[in-house]
Amino acid sequence: MNTPAAPLVDPLVLERIRGWRGYAEAKLGFRNHWYPTLNSGEVTEGKPVPFQLAGEKLLINRIDGRLYCIKDQCLHRGVPLSRKVECYGKDTVTCWYHGWTYQWADGKLCDILTDPSSKLIGTRSLKTYPAQECKGLVFVFLGDIEPTPLARDLPPGFDEADRRVQPFRRVVNANWRIGAENGFDTTHIFIHKDSRLIRGNQTMLPLGFAPNPNSKEPLFETRHTEGGNIGVFDLLAERGVPHFEGSVHGEVVRRAIHGGDKHIAGQISLWMPGVLKVDPFPDPAMIHFEWYVPRDADSHWYIHCATKVVEGPNADAEFAAEYEALWKDLYAHGFNDDDIWAREATQPFYQDDWGWLKEQLFEADACIMAWRKLASEHNRGIQTPGR
Amino acid sequence: MNTPAAPLVDPLVLERIRGWRGYAEAKLGFRNHWYPTLNSGEVTEGKPVPFQLAGEKLLINRIDGRLYCIKDQCLHRGVPLSRKVECYGKDTVTCWYHGWTYQWADGKLCDILTDPSSKLIGTRSLKTYPAQECKGLVFVFLGDIEPTPLARDLPPGFDEADRRVQPFRRVVNANWRIGAENGFDTTHIFIHKDSRLIRGNQTMLPLGFAPNPNSKEPLFETRHTEGGNIGVFDLLAERGVPHFEGSVHGEVVRRAIHGGDKHIAGQISLWMPGVLKVDPFPDPAMIHFEWYVPRDADSHWYIHCATKVVEGPNADAEFAAEYEALWKDLYAHGFNDDDIWAREATQPFYQDDWGWLKEQLFEADACIMAWRKLASEHNRGIQTPGR
Amino acid sequence: MNTPAAPLVDPLVLERIRGWRGYAEAKLGFRNHWYPTLNSGEVTEGKPVPFQLAGEKLLINRIDGRLYCIKDQCLHRGVPLSRKVECYGKDTVTCWYHGWTYQWADGKLCDILTDPSSKLIGTRSLKTYPAQECKGLVFVFLGDIEPTPLARDLPPGFDEADRRVQPFRRVVNANWRIGAENGFDTTHIFIHKDSRLIRGNQTMLPLGFAPNPNSKEPLFETRHTEGGNIGVFDLLAERGVPHFEGSVHGEVVRRAIHGGDKHIAGQISLWMPGVLKVDPFPDPAMIHFEWYVPRDADSHWYIHCATKVVEGPNADAEFAAEYEALWKDLYAHGFNDDDIWAREATQPFYQDDWGWLKEQLFEADACIMAWRKLASEHNRGIQTPGR
Repeated sequence: MNTPAAPLVDPLVLERIRGWRGYAEAKLGFRNHWYPTLNSGEVTEGKPVPFQLAGEKLLINRIDGRLYCIKDQCLHRGVPLSRKVECYGKDTVTCWYHGWTYQWADGKLCDILTDPSSKLIGTRSLKTYPAQECKGLVFVFLGDIEPTPLARDLPPGFDEADRRVQPFRRVVNANWRIGAENGFDTTHIFIHKDSRLIRGNQTMLPLGFAPNPNSKEPLFETRHTEGGNIGVFDLLAERGVPHFEGSVHGEVVRRAIHGGDKHIAGQISLWMPGVLKVDPFPDPAMIHFEWYVPRDADSHWYIHCATKVVEGPNADAEFAAEYEALWKDLYAHGFNDDDIWAREATQPFYQDDWGWLKEQLFEADACIMAWRKLASEHNRGIQTPGR
Repeated sequence: MNTPAAPLVDPLVLERIRGWRGYAEAKLGFRNHWYPTLNSGEVTEGKPVPFQLAGEKLLINRIDGRLYCIKDQCLHRGVPLSRKVECYGKDTVTCWYHGWTYQWADGKLCDILTDPSSKLIGTRSLKTYPAQECKGLVFVFLGDIEPTPLARDLPPGFDEADRRVQPFRRVVNANWRIGAENGFDTTHIFIHKDSRLIRGNQTMLPLGFAPNPNSKEPLFETRHTEGGNIGVFDLLAERGVPHFEGSVHGEVVRRAIHGGDKHIAGQISLWMPGVLKVDPFPDPAMIHFEWYVPRDADSHWYIHCATKVVEGPNADAEFAAEYEALWKDLYAHGFNDDDIWAREATQPFYQDDWGWLKEQLFEADACIMAWRKLASEHNRGIQTPGR
Repeated sequence: MNTPAAPLVDPLVLERIRGWRGYAEAKLGFRNHWYPTLNSGEVTEGKPVPFQLAGEKLLINRIDGRLYCIKDQCLHRGVPLSRKVECYGKDTVTCWYHGWTYQWADGKLCDILTDPSSKLIGTRSLKTYPAQECKGLVFVFLGDIEPTPLARDLPPGFDEADRRVQPFRRVVNANWRIGAENGFDTTHIFIHKDSRLIRGNQTMLPLGFAPNPNSKEPLFETRHTEGGNIGVFDLLAERGVPHFEGSVHGEVVRRAIHGGDKHIAGQISLWMPGVLKVDPFPDPAMIHFEWYVPRDADSHWYIHCATKVVEGPNADAEFAAEYEALWKDLYAHGFNDDDIWAREATQPFYQDDWGWLKEQLFEADACIMAWRKLASEHNRGIQTPGR
């Protein structure tokens, strides 16, 4: 755990960053935002589940169908309640150590089983966080203010009626920003050039894109969702020139695989607090969303959602079956597994924060720089350790 | 190893602690005190044994029955002598690297096998520490001053004639103070509420205690032993109200197990430099002592002693047999194993020292605060790294 | 990776060192020197091999028989090229992430496969290091200046015609200086007193040496090689008194094994940037060289070379066979394995840099102090982290 004596981000780095200092500070992510965490099905009635979000240990429970999330750290001696969960009623949790008992709904210390006469009872509260479900994901509002509507932290279209969602969560040993910049980065498609998705789904994927030299149009654009979220679109694919051949010293040394004529990934955008939308992907009928959820300074949850609008009484089951039969292998593993190792290979350079100064970005990274500035300007707070 | 450049305890924490700063500084324990270490039987004639105490590497040997303890670090290049013990006579140990030879009795560099003409011979000494046995435990005086009598660091009654002692030593991955505060903490008995000792030995153990609201009497008291040691008694059990029922929202949710009518743990006291006495325990005929011996900043030796006054020619063997047959399972494991996981679960909160500021103590912790103050005021020195 | 905020060597230590500060700073070795790395046979045509030298990740390749060494870290996002080597032509290497392509010869960014229009092309270069072979070892000039001739960093006689070399490389978990001081240290022969080389090759090896009390002659001497390198000779063996008997309290407690009359190790010298010559060793007909090559702050490559002048058409094969049959067991393992554990046992004392102040050297260490001063004065630069 970092303390004031050991700042999370090297101050010598922060003072040299111009225009996106807030993003450089946000090693643990942002405060006062909604993040997806577990799947709905993982939080069942009366069975608290611990997890880590943005450096904090949390405990979530379902009571009469509703979700309640509290800090997993007793006020008294700081121990994790989850080390031995003791619930003596459905609306409270009792610390295994000295019997301090908290209400799930508001965190209030309502009883102490070892000393019912303590004056602390009723006067102290454990931190609670609002939790809400959407499309099978449990979102937690990691904040201190009145929670914003969830829609303000969703990418456009995610919560659309009839859109079916298949989430897939993995731990990646890289900071969440390395994840976000890998996903949003236009030219990182170079690592997918041999992906089995290309032939397997008859798509076309260039090796890269060059800005159009005859155009002065910007390569990115900031937009808002109807719900009030803000994000940045990468327009390089739209306004730039796709390259299907790679040359060295003037000779073509590598051609893109021509899997077929399906066009994918036409619209790529990155939204607060760190969620990518790729439309369409991995198929013209689908939209892909992926969240980069900070766990601690050096790892994130990569929450990857295949989505499709399917109607009818069996829509969920149909899409689930299609995902299992086809997309899980061809795209979740056959495409995105490469992003995981790429992120983990990038992490060491940025781990001590000096990579942000030593990196050498190029023209195609304009949208990444736009994202860093947007995230610095539009976040509702920076998560700090020990908060 | 910590250096002056990296202080052992965060100075920002120390400057905010009022009234017990010395205890907060004593992450490695105290200087100029006697600590128990190995069992007598583990140190046999002419077979040096290495161990770690309060951040220091030590080497102990038995010569003609007497114990000699030296620092396990050659003066020359700082290597551990124990890496390859070479003893060419019974009263010396020779460093495997360059033949520097030290006398066990006083640490004097008496010979250098690779250069008998060196002017350093006879002019340098390795640090030695007095060692003494009591009741089958080897005590080491970790200090620089004339050693105090061992009795000044013993809890009352431990060295009583005819008291038989069964020691049991375990490594616990928590700072020694987390150990001490777990043991002395009155209301931590909540974690033992399902202990198999309760039914197995027909005892009664409340869930907790509340201070008596009609009394202004203090809940702790400082006392001295005849030997000159100082300690603090927890009087909550005596002056407070035991609770056999735990309630949440006014409803009884948990009752103490009624194992029988044996009264145990009536008198609980904690003594310098960190040893608990529980009288009687685990049986009306026994007294329990436990030491929290610092190994390094993040672990301690939990030295746990079952004791009983037994007379007669076979007293030792009889008590040893009783311990093996009954108490080892019912109490050493069946009761105190819970303390070990509780300490290890508490350690992360205090590891960076900020837990001492963030904790939220309650009324029943009065005796713990008394202990912290007593230990700050009455220690003979603070152990520092690299000493 | 260390950053300016966390200096590699504790500044409180550096400010207290008089006369050899540069050596104390050189935790990662020296800049602008040649170091041996892999064996020639390990770098084959068109198969880049990654390795670590002095805290830097490097990648070496052989093209048309010549060696090329570049920094293994793409300029763009700092990823290691070696994570997935992609070479689309024999004279370039392409980063797997975004297709940045570098020329092996000069490191120039000659193409970017994902954006051939980038203005960075041709204007940026990856750091390259000169590489050269000698006697079957690949030497790399870790520097920024015009490379010095390799001979200026070789010990005398190593590159002699007809001298056959059998290199043997091992990782030792100790700083490179702990390696160098172990090897050069005259009286460390005490650890070899039971070596199977002594009887196995009929040699004599004293337990140690004492300076001659009747002589005022210095015990070391600085010399230059013809190639321009500088080193220090240990003259203790020549001018001092060998001891074949070790005494404690005036009684002989240990005699050297008398293996035979072969004299070995008459001349011992240590050369920049950290290579020992022992002449003759392990046999009157052989010379031993060993390099201590920094990998990172806490480990070095111990590159150990048995050498012998052998003439004739099958000289290489003959010496290789002799080495395999005899010397590999008797000396490489049977003698030098002891140095490895000794270095690793010494490392903890020096790891935090305070050992340099706490050590207590003796008369026989005069040559070590001479080496520290020489290395401080004659190095061409100090390697720093993150360079």
